[in-house]
Amino acid sequence: MSGKEISKAVIRRLPRYYRYLGDLMNQGVERISSGDLSEQMQVTASQIRQDLNNFGGFGQQGYGYNVKNLYEEIGKILGLDRMHYMIIIGAGNLGQALANYNFDKNGFKTIAMFDNNPKFQGSVIRGIPVYMTEELPEFLKNHAVDVAALTLPKQYAAEMANVLADNGIKGIWNFAHTDLDLHLPDGVVVENVHLSESLMQLSYNLEQKHI
Amino acid sequence: MSGKEISKAVIRRLPRYYRYLGDLMNQGVERISSGDLSEQMQVTASQIRQDLNNFGGFGQQGYGYNVKNLYEEIGKILGLDRMHYMIIIGAGNLGQALANYNFDKNGFKTIAMFDNNPKFQGSVIRGIPVYMTEELPEFLKNHAVDVAALTLPKQYAAEMANVLADNGIKGIWNFAHTDLDLHLPDGVVVENVHLSESLMQLSYNLEQKHI
Repeated sequence: MSGKEISKAVIRRLPRYYRYLGDLMNQGVERISSGDLSEQMQVTASQIRQDLNNFGGFGQQGYGYNVKNLYEEIGKILGLDRMHYMIIIGAGNLGQALANYNFDKNGFKTIAMFDNNPKFQGSVIRGIPVYMTEELPEFLKNHAVDVAALTLPKQYAAEMANVLADNGIKGIWNFAHTDLDLHLPDGVVVENVHLSESLMQLSYNLEQKHI
Repeated sequence: MSGKEISKAVIRRLPRYYRYLGDLMNQGVERISSGDLSEQMQVTASQIRQDLNNFGGFGQQGYGYNVKNLYEEIGKILGLDRMHYMIIIGAGNLGQALANYNFDKNGFKTIAMFDNNPKFQGSVIRGIPVYMTEELPEFLKNHAVDVAALTLPKQYAAEMANVLADNGIKGIWNFAHTDLDLHLPDGVVVENVHLSESLMQLSYNLEQKHI
């Protein structure tokens, strides 16, 4: 997709298309019209056509979209056609929840977890070994790791993010309640999951709806 | 704030202001200029002034913003000045991670968890009791609960969401990988945390930056 500029808003919607198309594929559906997809996703058919037109003419008049082609094409755009190797920093509940999720089908394979609590020494979660944090730099020297999920408390997150960046990590999936992006080298991509901010949106929407 | 229309984009930015202002308050900072706030948050000062002007003249020329006032005012807009009572459905790793988070300071107090796995019978997590799922309707009859965090696998999520809605829950914080909003009564507010979609954004941004 080199050279093609797709708006951020469209990109933000792609994972949802990808999810619906994956579900359709699993149900054995081979093609779908923008109208039917519109009904399922509760997005207008014209929005769907506009969004998907960004990637060339996948839809054919009177035929609809080829589900598998479209799924694969969107997967390519999102970079899901290549495997990313991931580690999880923090083996607490959240780290374990992520380890159990199995994001392999999204192109993210977790190969190790790290924690500084000795109680986790030698633990294995869904086949994924937990190492001590002090072993991290050595591990990163010997393994090609692209991404680290960071599930540490806020006060340790920034320092750890810098250790990760110094050791060649290119992407950080940040669950700490702080903005790492502000302090990291330019080449490092950060995606934040700020749970309490999500909860505040819920609070706001409740307030609007019920008062 | 009744009757005032604030754009969705501004609302989405409010939790981040709230977080920074809370941090400043904890550091004992009493007032801050839009310029200083701009530097910390890496947002332009004019954006900050524009955003905060939506809520009346909190900033004073040559004085800046009163941190505590602004923090409280934004808290009120987000509905954080009243306590929401929350339950967590699912006592697995993710449910336990949420229970351990302590969102009380965001106005969300978790009062119970529910799971159908008998191994959790009688468990207590950070003081929060875990009940069996069959006890849920009775519990909701006897307790004023506003919000449920839903940490069930996708295939059970929709049915549970309907049980919750039928029993008076007004807000669902949904971690299942499916769009509940499409099937729920109008009065129920859903906020989704779709982890794999967040991971796909990370994948896309990595692809853009490094290829």
